[in-house]
Amino acid sequence: MDLAALRTAHPDHWMMASAIRALTLDAVAAANSGHSGMPMGMADVATVLFTNHLNFDPAAPHWPDRDRFILSAGHGSMLLYALLHLTGYEDFPIQQIRDFRQWGARTAGHPEYGHGRGIEVTTGPLGQGIANSVGFAIAEEIQRATWGDKIVNHHTYVMAGDGCLMEGISQEAIGLAGMQELSHLIVFFDDNDITIDGRVSIADRTDQVARFAASGWHVQAIDGHDPEAIDAAIVAAKADPRPSMIACKTHIALGHAAQDTSKGHGALTDAAQMQAAKDAYGWTAGPFDVPTEIKAQWEATATRGKAAHAAWAERFAKLSANKQAEFQRAYDLDAPKKLSATIRAFKKQASEAGKSVATRKSSENVLEVINPIMPETIGGSADLTGSNNTKTADMGTFTPDARTGRYIHYGIREHGMAAAMNGMVLHGGARPYGGTFMCFTDYARGAMRLSALMRVPVVYVMTHDSIGLGEDGPTHQPVEHLSMLRATPNTHVFRPADSVETAEAWELALTSTETPSVLALSRQNLPTVRTTHTNRNLTAQGGYVLAEAEGKRQVILIATGSEVELALAARDALQADGIGTRVVSMPCMELFMQQDEATRRKVLPAGPVRVAVEAGVRQSWDMILMGERGSAKKSAFVGMDGFGASAPAEVLYEKFGITAAKVAEAAKALL
Amino acid sequence: MDLAALRTAHPDHWMMASAIRALTLDAVAAANSGHSGMPMGMADVATVLFTNHLNFDPAAPHWPDRDRFILSAGHGSMLLYALLHLTGYEDFPIQQIRDFRQWGARTAGHPEYGHGRGIEVTTGPLGQGIANSVGFAIAEEIQRATWGDKIVNHHTYVMAGDGCLMEGISQEAIGLAGMQELSHLIVFFDDNDITIDGRVSIADRTDQVARFAASGWHVQAIDGHDPEAIDAAIVAAKADPRPSMIACKTHIALGHAAQDTSKGHGALTDAAQMQAAKDAYGWTAGPFDVPTEIKAQWEATATRGKAAHAAWAERFAKLSANKQAEFQRAYDLDAPKKLSATIRAFKKQASEAGKSVATRKSSENVLEVINPIMPETIGGSADLTGSNNTKTADMGTFTPDARTGRYIHYGIREHGMAAAMNGMVLHGGARPYGGTFMCFTDYARGAMRLSALMRVPVVYVMTHDSIGLGEDGPTHQPVEHLSMLRATPNTHVFRPADSVETAEAWELALTSTETPSVLALSRQNLPTVRTTHTNRNLTAQGGYVLAEAEGKRQVILIATGSEVELALAARDALQADGIGTRVVSMPCMELFMQQDEATRRKVLPAGPVRVAVEAGVRQSWDMILMGERGSAKKSAFVGMDGFGASAPAEVLYEKFGITAAKVAEAAKALL
Repeated sequence: MDLAALRTAHPDHWMMASAIRALTLDAVAAANSGHSGMPMGMADVATVLFTNHLNFDPAAPHWPDRDRFILSAGHGSMLLYALLHLTGYEDFPIQQIRDFRQWGARTAGHPEYGHGRGIEVTTGPLGQGIANSVGFAIAEEIQRATWGDKIVNHHTYVMAGDGCLMEGISQEAIGLAGMQELSHLIVFFDDNDITIDGRVSIADRTDQVARFAASGWHVQAIDGHDPEAIDAAIVAAKADPRPSMIACKTHIALGHAAQDTSKGHGALTDAAQMQAAKDAYGWTAGPFDVPTEIKAQWEATATRGKAAHAAWAERFAKLSANKQAEFQRAYDLDAPKKLSATIRAFKKQASEAGKSVATRKSSENVLEVINPIMPETIGGSADLTGSNNTKTADMGTFTPDARTGRYIHYGIREHGMAAAMNGMVLHGGARPYGGTFMCFTDYARGAMRLSALMRVPVVYVMTHDSIGLGEDGPTHQPVEHLSMLRATPNTHVFRPADSVETAEAWELALTSTETPSVLALSRQNLPTVRTTHTNRNLTAQGGYVLAEAEGKRQVILIATGSEVELALAARDALQADGIGTRVVSMPCMELFMQQDEATRRKVLPAGPVRVAVEAGVRQSWDMILMGERGSAKKSAFVGMDGFGASAPAEVLYEKFGITAAKVAEAAKALL
Repeated sequence: MDLAALRTAHPDHWMMASAIRALTLDAVAAANSGHSGMPMGMADVATVLFTNHLNFDPAAPHWPDRDRFILSAGHGSMLLYALLHLTGYEDFPIQQIRDFRQWGARTAGHPEYGHGRGIEVTTGPLGQGIANSVGFAIAEEIQRATWGDKIVNHHTYVMAGDGCLMEGISQEAIGLAGMQELSHLIVFFDDNDITIDGRVSIADRTDQVARFAASGWHVQAIDGHDPEAIDAAIVAAKADPRPSMIACKTHIALGHAAQDTSKGHGALTDAAQMQAAKDAYGWTAGPFDVPTEIKAQWEATATRGKAAHAAWAERFAKLSANKQAEFQRAYDLDAPKKLSATIRAFKKQASEAGKSVATRKSSENVLEVINPIMPETIGGSADLTGSNNTKTADMGTFTPDARTGRYIHYGIREHGMAAAMNGMVLHGGARPYGGTFMCFTDYARGAMRLSALMRVPVVYVMTHDSIGLGEDGPTHQPVEHLSMLRATPNTHVFRPADSVETAEAWELALTSTETPSVLALSRQNLPTVRTTHTNRNLTAQGGYVLAEAEGKRQVILIATGSEVELALAARDALQADGIGTRVVSMPCMELFMQQDEATRRKVLPAGPVRVAVEAGVRQSWDMILMGERGSAKKSAFVGMDGFGASAPAEVLYEKFGITAAKVAEAAKALL
């Protein structure tokens, strides 16, 4: 590359882009780790985007109608941090750049949502950002259709690299976005032909432009270092009614000795080489120093966005106070006031009706009363709508022709669905829930972990939650998944036993502001076990006494979901033998463990023997069974110790020994 | 569709295909569950494939040079079972078809590897089969290059549906296969435009033919009910040097009232509609009855394969006895005799050298001595070769121009890598291992679970196994993953503490015949803790006494991997205070729990207090800490209770309180 020619052709642009490159080199060198090459390669695209297009206001990082900028190639985090610093975000003074990758800094190795205002999303696990962006764009489409384009009308810009596009999740995102004609989604592909192991061609020869085109995208291929070409491509992308992909041919680590090599992907810390690169840029300022006039030019890129923000604020102020409050409520993740009463009424009706219902159907019944009062919900399923029971009567389907529809047919794309839901929450104004079979949490794990890490309250509706699904067999029968999810920090795993607990779980999931929820729901019918109505949400305690022992309390049976009925039947048998038996329903272990010790002891006193029953593996039960200090000496677990099998559900329960008789037997053996 | 015309045009073909359709209808109706439509739609393709092309021998289901038939759309399992029955596989008499989806039957809801000979792979979780097939085809290419095409020369045929192709993993498979020019891989796309939720277009408008072409595949689009077109397409696919995709336009549930509808995807059990469909086929035999002449025609499809098998056997017999034994050894998953001595020598050298080495580097060092004596190993990494330390000096890279290379650059495709590795083991003659960062087990989970379920001994080399990776931050720092993997049945999770344990773990992983292994390896250097050489593989016991208490044994410290050195330092501190302290290294919890009770008690006697230290969540440790019956009353855990952070590793250990001082402190608090 002839850097001098580039500099001469667009001197202001060049020095602004050089500021990104210089800060990147300085920060990575100071940290002695990180990724220099990506920011250096994509600095031109970023500079044009911020200068000519992106509507943002550093003084109001959460302005709802801002354009979103998503760095899917999260290892290039210094690109984002440099931009946030240069444009004047309060959370990113130069000290943050100096503290790149250090304890307590907002400038973590990969962008971490919540660490500083201006970071729209946590990225780093490749492919997530581009899949999140589909959720951002869907949320924008729905809100634009709902509120009108005077209130909501912005773009989602994404930078993705070869890594993002090789990850399978990208295909799920591309396919969904193409079908949905998400016209406000614009993806820059950092086409630098380099990955960690070498040239891209050692692992992939995909024509990415043709691939995106095959899924209905508007596609362009440009020189990623030519400011005019970049600008023209963005203009064309905005004008096209399809989602747009701009393949930007770039040089990784532009201007450095490691340019166009795998080495350039990593941390470039050699002082002489850094100096040579800066010399090539014509960058004479010292480390972490940005000349005042260049900083001023960068700060001026916000002018357009500040004006747009002010104009938007005027338009927003013209909405009725009620409408403003309703708009804000959804962005604040506040549940509507009516929710609590609605849930209580549902519970009362369900406990009185006392029907036998699969909890997946109970969940649908709850959603039928919730969705009409929570317009911010966005439902969906990974092609199992009728099985997950996720669609309610009031919900139109979201399609290119029906933008106020709130139900998404995600297709057979669990990972893409989960990531899109993360994007919707992060966009704001949306509360997504999505369904698949519990076993396919395996496919969605990459994004589910990020819900927990980013603290976004996505709701995962995971039906067919055990061998109770029957004939589909072990590939479809979760056994380790409850433990896996319980092992994950900041995740609430609800396994309700009946319609009442299902309603309680939904209330907790929809009032959560920082924790994702997993609802593990049965395929098979379950009797109502909460036949006495309580206004109080007992599931909020995590575990509670469902049936008290008669006579001396010798046994405590603990169960979740479909096994609560087995525990109750075992209690009947034990009580018939004169053995006082309490049944504890434990719909959410995490919430139970958050209770104070007195509450936990009240539910699980130290004396009686304990038997837990759950059609899954034991691992997550050890703490409950043995007590935090091994307080309960005698305990047993009735559940699975291997994979399931294909047969009718009742046969499987019998063959795997998960029955009331086995539970009673286990308790007696301990006495 | 004009079924009569189809029947008239190719009467023999038609009745053979009708046998598949009739058996499918009968079996699904008897089970009252399952998927009728897919087998009915793809029966013509299957019939042509088996009649004119597939080389198979029902009398020798494991004949190494057979063509492989992979039903990626595993819900259509009755297609496979019908084929195995009709062609005369001993494990699939008509009773198995009658027992479809019943307890103990070989005919599970989805094809389960190991349930009956003739099932090449477990499918059902969508997209897995097509990704497995890439591994089958790679194994075939390597072996063909190694042994010559007289010994290895066969095709891998795959049937994949819209679900398989919407799953992201399919893109990983398509990209890798295209780049690698896997000419013996032929995929039939069941292009029926129907998914469970409706027409495909409600979720996807991808031009699949263009998509495959974009990744370098040979592509064709045909009428999937025209036997001549099917045959011609297979002939063309075999002739092309690229992997081949044949889009077969089909009608789901052909000839049934539910044809071309989502209903047709599921269980078609209405007796009158079934009869009407059979009438339309001209099928007059009773349920589960296949007229003798049609059965004979089906059995005759094996003639070509039987002859090929006989000819192959003659050629194979001409190999030297040594070569024959070596070929068979790899297919039997027998480790070479030299392995044990090689590992012992490595251990002796490592314990004497006593160096400080990251276990990822130790792993590379072990592989350097193993790979030369185990030509069946196939290494690789998901674009982290230099970080995972998975490539050894003797291993050439597998490319279209170097087919004896045994190292695969999988690209940034963890899920596709894991599934391809499953395919390699299932193909036979291969022992794959593949690396990525431990945290990205999340991406590979779908296939890792299937390694466990199928009982295939894939080795997952998961480096950067804790906050010890430092600056990359919480997106890259596993905390729950050790517990998640330990919760998974039939999975060995090894977390070695030094070079010696790493060698022992590799020995166990490479001699395993039925259990996949995960090697959790450190980024950071670890001191050698096994400084005294033992021939015995102590890791095989799962946990063992690494350092005995001096004086009265009051404390047992238990640790894995990088935290063993902390436990030893804590022991020094405690012993200095006169507190007798044992250190137990626990490199594989699963193997420890498989020991008899006496052994476990010897390692973890009931008396002393127990403190476990691991830089992950506590969940999987409860059983070890509290004893199976709560035998150890006093215990503590030093580890993580949330996500990590971005900072240098030593800062993180300090800030999260995972230090020798904290371990000693925890022990003292219990005394």
